[in-house]
Amino acid sequence: MSISLGEIAARYGCELRGDPDCCVSHVATLSGAGPESLSFLANKAYRQQLETTGAAAVILSAEHVEACPTAALVSQNPYAVYARIAAELHPPFALVPGVDAMASVGEGCTIADSCQVAAGAVIEDGVVLGDRVSIGPNSVVGRGVHIGDDTQLMANVTVYHGVRIGSRCLLHSGVVIGADGFGIAQDESGWTKVPQLGGVDIADDVEIGANTTIDRGAIDDTIICAGVKLDNHIQVAHNVTIGAHTAIAALVGISGSTTIGGGCMIGGASLIAGHISICDHVMLAAGTGVAGSIDKPGAYGGYPANADEIGRWRKNVVRFSQLDEMARRLRKLEKRLEKMSD
Amino acid sequence: MSISLGEIAARYGCELRGDPDCCVSHVATLSGAGPESLSFLANKAYRQQLETTGAAAVILSAEHVEACPTAALVSQNPYAVYARIAAELHPPFALVPGVDAMASVGEGCTIADSCQVAAGAVIEDGVVLGDRVSIGPNSVVGRGVHIGDDTQLMANVTVYHGVRIGSRCLLHSGVVIGADGFGIAQDESGWTKVPQLGGVDIADDVEIGANTTIDRGAIDDTIICAGVKLDNHIQVAHNVTIGAHTAIAALVGISGSTTIGGGCMIGGASLIAGHISICDHVMLAAGTGVAGSIDKPGAYGGYPANADEIGRWRKNVVRFSQLDEMARRLRKLEKRLEKMSD
Amino acid sequence: MSISLGEIAARYGCELRGDPDCCVSHVATLSGAGPESLSFLANKAYRQQLETTGAAAVILSAEHVEACPTAALVSQNPYAVYARIAAELHPPFALVPGVDAMASVGEGCTIADSCQVAAGAVIEDGVVLGDRVSIGPNSVVGRGVHIGDDTQLMANVTVYHGVRIGSRCLLHSGVVIGADGFGIAQDESGWTKVPQLGGVDIADDVEIGANTTIDRGAIDDTIICAGVKLDNHIQVAHNVTIGAHTAIAALVGISGSTTIGGGCMIGGASLIAGHISICDHVMLAAGTGVAGSIDKPGAYGGYPANADEIGRWRKNVVRFSQLDEMARRLRKLEKRLEKMSD
Repeated sequence: MSISLGEIAARYGCELRGDPDCCVSHVATLSGAGPESLSFLANKAYRQQLETTGAAAVILSAEHVEACPTAALVSQNPYAVYARIAAELHPPFALVPGVDAMASVGEGCTIADSCQVAAGAVIEDGVVLGDRVSIGPNSVVGRGVHIGDDTQLMANVTVYHGVRIGSRCLLHSGVVIGADGFGIAQDESGWTKVPQLGGVDIADDVEIGANTTIDRGAIDDTIICAGVKLDNHIQVAHNVTIGAHTAIAALVGISGSTTIGGGCMIGGASLIAGHISICDHVMLAAGTGVAGSIDKPGAYGGYPANADEIGRWRKNVVRFSQLDEMARRLRKLEKRLEKMSD
Repeated sequence: MSISLGEIAARYGCELRGDPDCCVSHVATLSGAGPESLSFLANKAYRQQLETTGAAAVILSAEHVEACPTAALVSQNPYAVYARIAAELHPPFALVPGVDAMASVGEGCTIADSCQVAAGAVIEDGVVLGDRVSIGPNSVVGRGVHIGDDTQLMANVTVYHGVRIGSRCLLHSGVVIGADGFGIAQDESGWTKVPQLGGVDIADDVEIGANTTIDRGAIDDTIICAGVKLDNHIQVAHNVTIGAHTAIAALVGISGSTTIGGGCMIGGASLIAGHISICDHVMLAAGTGVAGSIDKPGAYGGYPANADEIGRWRKNVVRFSQLDEMARRLRKLEKRLEKMSD
Repeated sequence: MSISLGEIAARYGCELRGDPDCCVSHVATLSGAGPESLSFLANKAYRQQLETTGAAAVILSAEHVEACPTAALVSQNPYAVYARIAAELHPPFALVPGVDAMASVGEGCTIADSCQVAAGAVIEDGVVLGDRVSIGPNSVVGRGVHIGDDTQLMANVTVYHGVRIGSRCLLHSGVVIGADGFGIAQDESGWTKVPQLGGVDIADDVEIGANTTIDRGAIDDTIICAGVKLDNHIQVAHNVTIGAHTAIAALVGISGSTTIGGGCMIGGASLIAGHISICDHVMLAAGTGVAGSIDKPGAYGGYPANADEIGRWRKNVVRFSQLDEMARRLRKLEKRLEKMSD
């Protein structure tokens, strides 16, 4: 597969500096690019690699165009344009419709002819799969699950009974959707299990990273809105709601019954308490602890303690590294004052 | 299924305020309840929803009974009573005894007729399953594993060779029991693997959340006592012992050879060092770091640093958010003193 | 199986204090050892158990030999010697070559006769397995994957298409290698997926703990060098490089495009930012946050904040627990000074 720069410019709304007939066949990093490579510059940290790149063309923003030694495709959002062209140059494996002889399909299922169900997959009773759904090897889809068109479960995914998943979703290996929330009630004998009777409702265009877990609700559902992107090893507890287009990095824990707004960006390993709410357009630095609700959009950081306005938190972090020195200076002042008052 | 309030009151030892012949068919949240719903109030945060609930009846403690606009089932432990009634109104799927044709069973296994072994499950040689054990789709049970009566492995669970699991346990998807502990010995060439020769011994009534891992012991066993409840994504290293009825929230890491007492409650994402011991009835706030042993029951929090008495820790956390301001005040004092001594 | 102490001493270069004809048949802890047990002392915390051990012999360093009540095998590295003898006394299950009838093997695969492919394993098209490779039950090996001699995938492992794994590696259950990196580009509609087109390249003698994930690169590969040892629940993001013989404890997160040197030891639950580099021979305390590059070998700790020299960090941690008291002392000084200047 090969595309001319002229066609790329026209199709993706870029301004082209260079030969429109020049063709590219694949994407590459600036430093690894060759004469048929298309590269991009989206992170200034890689700016110096631009000057020596061997790429046929580079997608970049206007500010870097003068430094580009080769053809340039100028865009206001080089990373998003790169993403779309890369998907076109490197299409994913095509679906091979059909149910593998080594898959197990229960009774009363509705599986479109265009679906692919791989070897070892287990589809329990009453499952409904939309068009072109792909169920990877050894994945398990529980009773009565509904999955929308073009959604893909990779290998070894588990979806518990009754879960609903929208269209164009992508669930990576090791993902577990709909396991019981951690509901236990203390009594004289220790703990009684609180039945987890709700479901999980995942809207369209959601991506879920490897080994992430989303628990089913206790009574009502756990809700993941459209366009949410979750990285690996995330824990979403029962009755959490995550608003549309929120992106969450790896190893984050969200406790039960918490609501996160739309358009948020949550840094890796952040820890969010239960029964609180975070409004739309909140950005959390990696490792933030959120102990109480946040109702003002903005960037927050902070750990230990509740999330703090990010500038203030950064200052306090610097002070933490001076804490021992501060304590010594404090002691010195105390001694001087004691002497003075003698 | 439907139960009268009179029957509930008698069976679960509640005091009924309302019509004993009124029947409920399902549980619901206070805000989502309708005329056949049974609801409950166990967390004061939801108190205001009580006043407008449409439930047929609400389980609650005596202090809230006056505010209840509908029938009330008064109990000293509303949450535990709710849990038991919910389990009765919403029974889990019934077991379908038998070994699926697409399951694989090794030689020398003892599998009670009342067991269910689902499609894709792999039972290796010499496994012993008690009565009514359920092995979910694509779960793997290693050689010589013993599992007690009424224990359930959901889909995609892995149990390594030789592990022993008690009765009435519930293991969620992605759980891995008995993988090698992280035992490596440094030598001239890098690292030599230390064989992990112990097992894992899990007692009765243990629940283990999705994607949690419990490693096998190096020589002796890793031990999980009766009634322990583990949430998702927990790491239990080799030779850890967890005492009876301890509950641990998600994302906690427990390092090797550490002993945790009984009746403890460990908050999410806490990190517990190796080769230490925590006594019975210790409560850790979410995100606590425990670097040394704790030998006095009580509530602890603290990160960074060793766990601290929780009140003191909370004060220090507040001070952390004032740290930059404190540093400035300190500098100002120093300057004034310098001036004064000039 | 049984070995004489004389043979052990000769084979592993130990100095023997005791009867060379005395035989041991298994390993045991100091406290659990009996008359045929071989034990070891490698951690001073267990020194007092030495004095009452019932072991036939103990592997230890010269400093403890006088306190040993039984035969002693003296070595400069007792733990590594123990590891090798334990492996000899307790050999792992032998491979049973062959492809199980309930495994699925795609087209164009090269699988050596000496390999074992267990029930429920799914090998996709074009996979190449070296000699004596073992693929555990319900593991999935994606298209075109290459795996070197003597590598073992335990049960329920997932390896995505195109990944390369070296010889003598061991991948535990729940491991996911080659899932998409978390690459998303913001645009007007929310997020566009950035295709993850690189692979994962794992060298020889790598061990990977249960439920650890290593994402494929965005364009170039994610690289794990020879002899790396990874514990459970670790997240390795796209385009990370981990240098030879680095050992990483559980629950660590390494963000994208970061390079970690060789011979490092990373404590559990550490969090390492993206696009940075850590040089060879760096040791991080458990729970360290690394926000910027480290270019000097040594021990570091610190959280919150960037990693700090470990001695300084420990002092600051102690001060953190005195923070509230420091704040009160500061206020007192301010008041005294105010009074003095009145």
